[in-house]
Amino acid sequence: MKNIALQISYDGRGYSGWQIQNDVDSIQGRLTKAIYSLTGEKVQLIGSGRTDKGVHAIRQYANFFTNSQIQPERFSFALNANLPLNIRVNKSFLVSDDFNSRKDAISKTYKYLFENAKIPSPFLKGYALQVRADLDIKKMEIEGKKLIGTHDFTSFYKNDEKNPKNPIRTINSFEIIKSKEIENLYYIEINGNSFLHNMVRIIVGTLIDIGRGRIKIGIKDILEKNDRKFAGKTAIAEGLYLKEVFYDKKYIDF
Amino acid sequence: MKNIALQISYDGRGYSGWQIQNDVDSIQGRLTKAIYSLTGEKVQLIGSGRTDKGVHAIRQYANFFTNSQIQPERFSFALNANLPLNIRVNKSFLVSDDFNSRKDAISKTYKYLFENAKIPSPFLKGYALQVRADLDIKKMEIEGKKLIGTHDFTSFYKNDEKNPKNPIRTINSFEIIKSKEIENLYYIEINGNSFLHNMVRIIVGTLIDIGRGRIKIGIKDILEKNDRKFAGKTAIAEGLYLKEVFYDKKYIDF
Repeated sequence: MKNIALQISYDGRGYSGWQIQNDVDSIQGRLTKAIYSLTGEKVQLIGSGRTDKGVHAIRQYANFFTNSQIQPERFSFALNANLPLNIRVNKSFLVSDDFNSRKDAISKTYKYLFENAKIPSPFLKGYALQVRADLDIKKMEIEGKKLIGTHDFTSFYKNDEKNPKNPIRTINSFEIIKSKEIENLYYIEINGNSFLHNMVRIIVGTLIDIGRGRIKIGIKDILEKNDRKFAGKTAIAEGLYLKEVFYDKKYIDF
Repeated sequence: MKNIALQISYDGRGYSGWQIQNDVDSIQGRLTKAIYSLTGEKVQLIGSGRTDKGVHAIRQYANFFTNSQIQPERFSFALNANLPLNIRVNKSFLVSDDFNSRKDAISKTYKYLFENAKIPSPFLKGYALQVRADLDIKKMEIEGKKLIGTHDFTSFYKNDEKNPKNPIRTINSFEIIKSKEIENLYYIEINGNSFLHNMVRIIVGTLIDIGRGRIKIGIKDILEKNDRKFAGKTAIAEGLYLKEVFYDKKYIDF
């Protein structure tokens, strides 16, 4: 058995998200089916994490075990021939047997795109949150940087499971970058060890509400409340991109 | 009668191009209909130029005469309410009676997007030409700059009208810029006094063929041949954007 890792990009519009489920069109489902077409094997495809309905990925990772004789590097080309154009396997490669793309992820970077313009661009719908209201971007960045560090993120996640999770997470970096190539577009980039459900989208929605003056208290106050209702709206899924997943160099070194 | 100018953006996918025609969905048709809904007037909407099926516009201009009492600046908001989201009027303003958005255009800038990657991005389909072959971008830029100046562009246009046009045109600038924000994406920017039918797309197709080694002769040789068959393929419409139209400051000053 060989352990094969995949680096995947996808346009999440029209998909139910990463996770395979009955009667819905998922990224994991499409990939598992493509692997089956190729190898005849019903593999357990482990993803670096779940993405929600509509969320995009620039570089997500996944891995599976196979007895196939296909060269590890050839899987990307072979799988792409069995996938729609809005899902692409950029790379495929052999990894050591103990590699697990979910458990071994050290940190993840998410990118969130928003446009701030009175008249939204015809090109960004489905790819960015479009905000018409005036935003104080400087203030948003100052507040966003207050997320850096280890905090209880109870205020910033959708607690929809029976057993509440440990809400302690570490954010390593936070930036808002104005695009130099696409007018009125901004990129939020956030790296953390791991993220709770809807955490990035609630952070973005809160910062937008701070930037437009709807929320008067700051990020530190909201963190201290430990209550979801003090944070802002959950920003739309279509603005969110899983940009990168980081692993120990012994597993993935490029 | 007031002469109103519009600055328009649109995602050209799904439209038959600028020009109004029976039984097709055109940009000019959509705008004319929106103006009619608003004013009850069947106006003659003059565009800064025609765009072909599938071509996008970042900033195109148009103008029309109206007896409406609507404030010139309000037209943009009022028209947007009557237009699909993939066509947006960014600005509307009063211009002098002698302004004609087609005749008064001094020069135009087109932008052409191409991606050069073995595995095409799931995000660029419909917005950029996707080229898998290795390209010598440096050579493409050197050759592209040879278009600058006044030349007979017979080799670089689709001569599909009964009476051949004067094929002399002036190109003022040509650049290939690698995106710093979107991986493997390149922008070709070309400014000229005016362009013949399919001229930018044939120029791009030719440079791509030069960059991948399919065409062995250079731009100067092809110009001198005065024969379309020496140039390359017409690059797809979906990569082309009308970026800007320039007018005398007495008409449009911003």
